[in-house]
Amino acid sequence: MIDRQADLESCLRTFADLQGPKILIHGGGRRATQLSTTMGLVPQLIEGRRVTNADTLEVVTMVYAGLINKNMVAKLQSFDCNAAGFSGADLNLIQSTKRAPNPIDFGFVGDIESINTAAIMKLVRSGIVPVFCPLTHDGHGQLLNTNADTIASSIAVSLAAVTKVELRLCFEMGGVLTDPEDASSLQEKISPSDFQRLKSLGAIHSGMIPKLDNAFMAAEHGVEYVRIGSFTDLAESGTQVIYD
Amino acid sequence: MIDRQADLESCLRTFADLQGPKILIHGGGRRATQLSTTMGLVPQLIEGRRVTNADTLEVVTMVYAGLINKNMVAKLQSFDCNAAGFSGADLNLIQSTKRAPNPIDFGFVGDIESINTAAIMKLVRSGIVPVFCPLTHDGHGQLLNTNADTIASSIAVSLAAVTKVELRLCFEMGGVLTDPEDASSLQEKISPSDFQRLKSLGAIHSGMIPKLDNAFMAAEHGVEYVRIGSFTDLAESGTQVIYD
Repeated sequence: MIDRQADLESCLRTFADLQGPKILIHGGGRRATQLSTTMGLVPQLIEGRRVTNADTLEVVTMVYAGLINKNMVAKLQSFDCNAAGFSGADLNLIQSTKRAPNPIDFGFVGDIESINTAAIMKLVRSGIVPVFCPLTHDGHGQLLNTNADTIASSIAVSLAAVTKVELRLCFEMGGVLTDPEDASSLQEKISPSDFQRLKSLGAIHSGMIPKLDNAFMAAEHGVEYVRIGSFTDLAESGTQVIYD
Repeated sequence: MIDRQADLESCLRTFADLQGPKILIHGGGRRATQLSTTMGLVPQLIEGRRVTNADTLEVVTMVYAGLINKNMVAKLQSFDCNAAGFSGADLNLIQSTKRAPNPIDFGFVGDIESINTAAIMKLVRSGIVPVFCPLTHDGHGQLLNTNADTIASSIAVSLAAVTKVELRLCFEMGGVLTDPEDASSLQEKISPSDFQRLKSLGAIHSGMIPKLDNAFMAAEHGVEYVRIGSFTDLAESGTQVIYD
């Protein structure tokens, strides 16, 4: 989830320096919104999630798979990181189904059906660093928009069945804060019971809830180490997500 | 080179049905021009070639690597063709240098420096069908716009050093015509001496000249079979390019 150009290079350099096999999954909603505006489209969000009509699908395909993905790949290559950009359509890596239109019609949004674990492992084992944009496909030629955190968690869970996996969900905050205005409210660790308690107190804001849902989903399904933190710091800071 | 949506599906189906290892290289100038117009940019062409300023580079990155590439890949996957989309930045497949600004400053245009033949062969041999968009990179993080025919010829020549290669340069015409208005003026074969003669007679129009230059470059450098024809018919029709 990197929307700010200023943080991008630092994040990519840190990522390039990480040792061992690795995969990057990025978003790009802010740039997509900018382009939509330039094109005279009015972005529609329901509960913080983009409604993807046909025009918006074109915009996110251009921004996610083109502008953001290829610039990240070129930058990573300049850092001697052997990146290759993928959508879920490439090599049939992530197949999804278009979400049912009830109760809310989110348009061309895909819910993940299957991850091509074997193909991803083959890429990673041959020294390739996959860089995923948040697009999937339905196997019948239709691209679909899929949340980047959900893709990250789903890939992490699928790979956890065959190897040890760490998942780091990164965003513009330093981790899980109970007061978004106060960096000292950072939670060093969070368990599902903490999450329920903080949610009931209203201490965790709306955008954080799906992120934590994805994090706990991964922790619950075999991902050894899950952390939420800033994308400018991929080290040991932020909030560790524990499954109790 | 497929700009018309109506022909795209037929072309992709024909391509998917081709037996043996294969690579697709596509363009997308027409869609890029459409998007530029929608965004209020004025496309600038010199001698039929796009001048790629920073805004235009963003547009072509979005259209070529995003919109066109990923929709093609999704469509090919639906035809059971194991496509994966690439730019030259991915896996450092095609490195280029920014063209010198004299005599004409084409902006962010890259002249091919090297093709990563080993990486392309590894992809193809593992059953992957690479789908290239016409973007390269300079190895220092900069994407560059590169003519699709030039990429196709350069890849064909690089692979011809290690395996038998056929190159089919496809576009909206049925082949090399000496009168663009008359399909019966199709040349079944064309040699460099025919080319020089037809050029001196003014019987070959401007857009065809770089295409034929690329075709002869490939034929001259070990590509066994080179043909120019319609992208709706990848079979034996069109014009065979022979090197005498």
